[in-house]
This record gives sequence, structure tokens and C-alpha cells, in this order.
Amino acid sequence: MKTVLITGASGNLGKASVERFLADGYTVLATVTPGKTLGFETSGKVLTYEADLTDEQAVETVVAKAIATHGTLDAALLLVGGYAGGGLAEADGKTVKKMIALNFETAYNVARPVFQHMQKQGGGRIVFVGARTALKASDGKKSLAYALSKSLIFKLAELLNATGNASNVTASVVVPSTIDTPTNREAMPNADFTAWVAPDAIADAIAHICSAKTNDWRETVLKIYGRA
Amino acid sequence: MKTVLITGASGNLGKASVERFLADGYTVLATVTPGKTLGFETSGKVLTYEADLTDEQAVETVVAKAIATHGTLDAALLLVGGYAGGGLAEADGKTVKKMIALNFETAYNVARPVFQHMQKQGGGRIVFVGARTALKASDGKKSLAYALSKSLIFKLAELLNATGNASNVTASVVVPSTIDTPTNREAMPNADFTAWVAPDAIADAIAHICSAKTNDWRETVLKIYGRA
Amino acid sequence: MKTVLITGASGNLGKASVERFLADGYTVLATVTPGKTLGFETSGKVLTYEADLTDEQAVETVVAKAIATHGTLDAALLLVGGYAGGGLAEADGKTVKKMIALNFETAYNVARPVFQHMQKQGGGRIVFVGARTALKASDGKKSLAYALSKSLIFKLAELLNATGNASNVTASVVVPSTIDTPTNREAMPNADFTAWVAPDAIADAIAHICSAKTNDWRETVLKIYGRA
Amino acid sequence: MKTVLITGASGNLGKASVERFLADGYTVLATVTPGKTLGFETSGKVLTYEADLTDEQAVETVVAKAIATHGTLDAALLLVGGYAGGGLAEADGKTVKKMIALNFETAYNVARPVFQHMQKQGGGRIVFVGARTALKASDGKKSLAYALSKSLIFKLAELLNATGNASNVTASVVVPSTIDTPTNREAMPNADFTAWVAPDAIADAIAHICSAKTNDWRETVLKIYGRA
Repeated sequence: MKTVLITGASGNLGKASVERFLADGYTVLATVTPGKTLGFETSGKVLTYEADLTDEQAVETVVAKAIATHGTLDAALLLVGGYAGGGLAEADGKTVKKMIALNFETAYNVARPVFQHMQKQGGGRIVFVGARTALKASDGKKSLAYALSKSLIFKLAELLNATGNASNVTASVVVPSTIDTPTNREAMPNADFTAWVAPDAIADAIAHICSAKTNDWRETVLKIYGRA
Repeated sequence: MKTVLITGASGNLGKASVERFLADGYTVLATVTPGKTLGFETSGKVLTYEADLTDEQAVETVVAKAIATHGTLDAALLLVGGYAGGGLAEADGKTVKKMIALNFETAYNVARPVFQHMQKQGGGRIVFVGARTALKASDGKKSLAYALSKSLIFKLAELLNATGNASNVTASVVVPSTIDTPTNREAMPNADFTAWVAPDAIADAIAHICSAKTNDWRETVLKIYGRA
Repeated sequence: MKTVLITGASGNLGKASVERFLADGYTVLATVTPGKTLGFETSGKVLTYEADLTDEQAVETVVAKAIATHGTLDAALLLVGGYAGGGLAEADGKTVKKMIALNFETAYNVARPVFQHMQKQGGGRIVFVGARTALKASDGKKSLAYALSKSLIFKLAELLNATGNASNVTASVVVPSTIDTPTNREAMPNADFTAWVAPDAIADAIAHICSAKTNDWRETVLKIYGRA
Repeated sequence: MKTVLITGASGNLGKASVERFLADGYTVLATVTPGKTLGFETSGKVLTYEADLTDEQAVETVVAKAIATHGTLDAALLLVGGYAGGGLAEADGKTVKKMIALNFETAYNVARPVFQHMQKQGGGRIVFVGARTALKASDGKKSLAYALSKSLIFKLAELLNATGNASNVTASVVVPSTIDTPTNREAMPNADFTAWVAPDAIADAIAHICSAKTNDWRETVLKIYGRA
């Protein structure tokens, strides 16, 4: 039985991923904000760990605990994130810092000890969530703080892959355009929702990346843009 | 029933792909060198078309014929290719031209009419075979003519994707490192074969790219390096 | 007479840049750490402004003051930075944060108001200092926190250029390998110093970028690696 | 006295480059189509060599002759090229081949023996002309054959630089957007010519790349887009 650690499990993509990995037979560990729960009923058992993911020490403790309990961590999905729109005018230093904390630090704090553990155990998969806006400057200039923060995710994956070349630990990035969530539908009521990408489609790609079918895949970056 | 057109079907990756797509229930069309056959027994029926793929006119005729017979082409796998080692000293203009003809023109001549047909039919998947050597100059300088020719494949996929953005036609590239073939084992008898990538693993990635599971994937470039 | 704002002026590259821009006839404004001076004799007059560059408010005040005094800012050289070696094991979250503050935030806090002012005045040049380690993962994995922080500089330049396309404001990045400084000679006493890059060579490239000769250059990234 | 070899010298950029390098005191060697002359008066002496640059053997003979006569070749500017507009529909295989011959082979046939000679002599500069259309797929899809052919120039420079890392031979690419030539003014009579780039501005960048001021520059790619 394989074990996956999921952060941001209470979000839309998180929920889809939890359900998918449960269906695939994984033991699912999920981090939750201290004092919170997942916020939805799951079809199977999910072990939750409370942690403020911006607190490096706290995260290390939680990861150590998860490893002590479950031994092998086969996969880690680092799904926490948040958005801020606006170009240079809106992206003051405070906003950029906040975006970096939310989109990068929460991933880094978990990825670092997990990656090191996976190197020791001889393999593992880390999956990050990028953003098209970080790849395409003509988009990125409209959500500048967000684009900067998400660009760190791609660079981190690249550096982890260079670090883990010899072992079988890989870092992958799924890159959504617009995810079809209630929040986005509300924010863009006139958009063509059929062009967007369903959380399930992304969760399916993540599950594929974590399967034995991709043992030979390296430096994977999957753009899941749909027609958006 | 879905239809796939495969070029280079008589090679190692071709054979694995033919079998995989037969198993997935596709009608398989394969091009063969005029006067030749596939060269192996298949587990199901494969319709072969004779064509010199460096001859644009001949290819157009064959593609038109395939379309006339089968209507929809759901996928096309452009697997023809060849290798030439050697750095700048060995890569004379003649060799570069030969590599471009073999690795790029054979793909371009098929991809162009197929892509145009897929745009008309409202969707389709074209899969190319790249090479790590075309992405990594420190490798590429050792097989310079080959690297140049394969670099065109990545650029072509990029341009096709920019062209097909509005429709659901996508161009993807699978990027092997060293494929585990009898030829390569003979050429590098002391290498660690377990680090190489089996043709089946690449065929599996190609089949995934052509499946409904990747409807939302765009600009896909899959590095299938194994531990090589 | 043209005006240039230089941060990190007291460093080795800063000193070379101050002298070069003085020689080129610029009015030179330099930020210094509160309570500090430039720390060296200059061949001409340099106007210093005290500012903690990690403090966004303080920087905005200083930039506003410089603009109020000098009107046009023709160029801004954002040279503040610092190094931290070490791979994933050494790069704890605290170190990454520190590197981002030192190498990115100090640049961002100045670049943002300066860029906005340059857009209003109809032109200007911002020059950042990148690092090869942020472009080349096989190097970057050995100074992971530094590489992550410097990667933000490249992305920022890209986003600023996308933002400033219509105007004549450009963001450029000079990318040194190893700069020939006393500190580096001490740290790597057995290296071949002749392979390194002199601060003067980088200052010359920066001066060229800020000259009228490059009015048509866009999205400039100059790798100044020497033989290192 | 330094020596430069210029191909495509009779074109607009060629003429500007010939004049600039004459002014800089170079001995200027220029290739011309067999039976043709430069087609313009020069301000100084230019030694012309007749050669069909698509004929590898002929080029090798000419390069050998130039080297025998002048000894050191300090720089080579490979300016031959031609344009073909049109997307996938227009870019038949024949057109792509023609573009590759014109834009890539004419450069490769010269660059190869020159680069090898420069390695022997311990240094040298090769300058290629790229095209924005080869970097930006949203543009490239509108001149697909041209974009494919110019993309080879960037890859070639990359591979040459990887090859010449240890020596002081460098390959650089200048990347114009629209050059302000009589032909382009005629083709696009309603465009804003002031947004275009003058041949002199590009020649100036090329001259800078070939000067001692850029001894430490590596892998140089200069986008000279102006406001086009």
C-alpha cells in the first residue's frame, strides 16, 4: 500500500486529489490548518496533520511524525496556494512577499524534508502546482506578484531534479490555466466554463505522474490548459 | 474505433507502438518503405502504406488515401528517424542535411497534411520523437548533426501548437534518452542497460498522450530519460 | 547630463560602476546602508542616500526624493546582493528567505517605483545582476538558496519588459560567473584568477546597456562568464 | 590589423557592416555570388571572394584561401538569408527546404571551417543573424518555414558555444525584429518606420560583439527589436 502526503487538501484540487488517491488505494495523509478540518466528507480514511505550512519548524515536525508512522512516503502533492491579481501598480513588495510565502514557502518547507527522506528511501515523487502565468510573461504581467511566486516553483523543481538525478526521486510540475472551481465561476461569470480545466483532470494527471507507469519520466512539466 | 497512423513502424519503438495501439483497439495504419514489409508478425491487423517519406508528393498521396479510406485520423505517431554521432569535426554539411532529411523532413511531410486534416475534423494528436541531445548542448555537441535535426522537431511542435491553439489538435514530443534496443546494446556493450528506457515505456507514454485522459494537455514535452 | 541611481555601490562591482558612470559624465546617486558611507574615495561627486533596501516604505521615500531633486532618472543599477553556498541540505527555509530578501527584495523595492517613474518620463534603463547558477541547474543545485533568489531577478526583468513594451523602459540582466574580487580570491585561493571576470568588464557592459547605442536592444540578458 | 569575413555583404545589413568594420580598421573580406560584385561603392578596400555558399566544397575552398592569405580570421559575420512568409498552409516541404538552405546551410558551411580555424588560432568571434519569429511561436506560425530555418541558427550557436567552451571562440546571435530597409518599407508602406531597426544599429551591435570589450561575453544573444 502506497502513501501520499497532500497539502492544500481542503481546496478544490485538493479534494479531487484526495478522492483520486483514495480510489487508487493510497494511504492518504493530509495537512490541515491548525484548528481546521478538511471541510468535506471523504470516501475513505484520511489521516490529517495540523500544520502552519509557513512555519518551517512545525512542518519538519509534522513530516518527521508522518515518516515515523508510515515509513515510506511514495508521493507528496504540494497543492497549497493562493492568487493575487494585478500588475506592477498593484504588486507592492508586501503582496509579493505574501505570494511567495503562500505559493513557494509552503511548498518548500514540505518538499525539502520529504525530498531528503525520499532520497534515503531510494525513490519518490513530488508534485508541484505551477501556473501558466509564470511561464508566459504577457499573462504574468497582469498578475505580477503571483507570477513571480509561481516561477520559484518551476525553478525549485528543476533544482530538485538536478539534485536527485542519481536517485529515483523526481519533482514534477502540473501547470493549470484556469481551473473550473466555484470561486472562478463566480469571479468570471461570463467566461466559457467548458474551456476551463476540471480539478479531476488535474488530479488524474497527478495520479499518473505518481504511478509506476512514469518510472522513466524525468523533469516532467505538464501544461494542462484545456482551451483556456 | 479510433485510427492511428504510424511512421517508422518497423523500428523498435514502432513495433512497440503498433502492438500497444492494437491492444488499445485502434485501427493501425503504418507506412513502410516501398518494396518492404513491416518485418514482424503483429498480434492484429495492420494496414500498410508504401511511401518514401522524404518525398513530399508521395506522402501527400498516401495521407490523402488513408483519409479517404478511414475518414478520421485520431492520432499520428511520427517515429521515423536515424542517428549520426560525432561533433563538429564529423558533422559536415552533407551529414547535417542527411540528418535533417531523415529526422525532420520525414516528420514534416506527414505532419503537415495530417495536421491540416485534423484541424478540419476538429481534433487530433500528433506525437513526435525528440532527443535529449537536442535539449542539452553539452550532449548535443557530441552528435551535432543529429542534435540540429532533432531540434527542428521541438520547434515544429511549438509552431504547430501555436497554429492549432483554437482547435483541439495538439502536437506532443516524447524525448527519450537511450532506448533499450538490440542495436544500442551491441553498440554500448558495457553500459548499464537497466538505466535505459524500454520501447514499451515510450509506447505507453505515447498511448497516454493519445487517450481521452489528456484532452486538456497542451504543448506536451515528455522527457523519458530513465536513469540514462 | 544623465542621472544614474546605483544600489550596492560600496561593493566591488558597485565601485567599478560608480567610477565608470562618473567617467561617462553621469550624475551618480548611490544608496548606502543607514549610518554607513560608500567606503571609498571617488574620482567625482557621488550623492548618497541612506536607505535600508529591504524596507519598502523607506525605499519609496528615497526614490521619491531622488526624483524630486533630479527629475529624470536615466538608469538604475541594482547591484545589492549576497551569496550563500550549499545544496538542499544547507538551504533551510530561513536561508532561502534571507537570500530572497537580499537578492530579490532589495532589487524589487527600488525597481518598482523607478520603473513606474521611467514609464512616466518616457524611457529609462534598469540593470539587474543575475547569476549563472540561476540559469544552470547543475551549478544551481550547489547553491540552491542563492540560485532560487537570483532566478527571481530574471523573471522580474522578463515581467517588467512585458509591462514596458510600449514605452522605452527596458530591464536588462548582466550575468556574471565568478567576479574577480578580493573576497573570491581569498575563498578560492587555488583557482585560475585569469578565468574570472573583472568588475570593470561588467561595469563596462552595464555602461554600454545604459548608452544610446542600445536604444533598440530589448530583453537583454548578457552572460559575462569569461573562462570561468 | 584585424580581419573579418562577411557573407551576405551586398544586402542592407551587409553594407552597413562592411562600412562599420572598414571604419573600425578591419581588413574586410566579403563573399559574393559567383559572377556578381558587392553592388555598391565602399569607403575602403574590400576583398571579395566568389562562392555559392550552399556548396559546401566551394565554401571550404574559399575559406581555406582566405585563411592562407590573411592568416588570422578574427571575426566572421554570417549575414546571408532570405524570408518567406506564410503559415502551415503556405509552408510546403519545398519551401522549408529552401529556407533551411538559404538561412542555415549558407551559415553552417562557412561557420564550420571558420570555427575550426578559430579554435586552432586560439580565439575568434562568429556572429549569426537570428529572427524574433524563431523565438516567439505566436509570430513564427505566420512565417513557419522561415521560423524553422532561423531556429537552427540559435541551436547552432548554442552547440558551437558548447564545443568552444575551453577556447576563446564564441558564437553570438543578433536578433532583429523588422529591419528598416527599402524592401520592407515597400512591402509595409503603412507601418511606423521609426519603430523599426536601422541596419546601422545592428552593425553597431555586431561590431561591439567583435571588439575587445566583450572578451568575457559568452553565449550572447542580442534582441534588437526597437519598438517593432
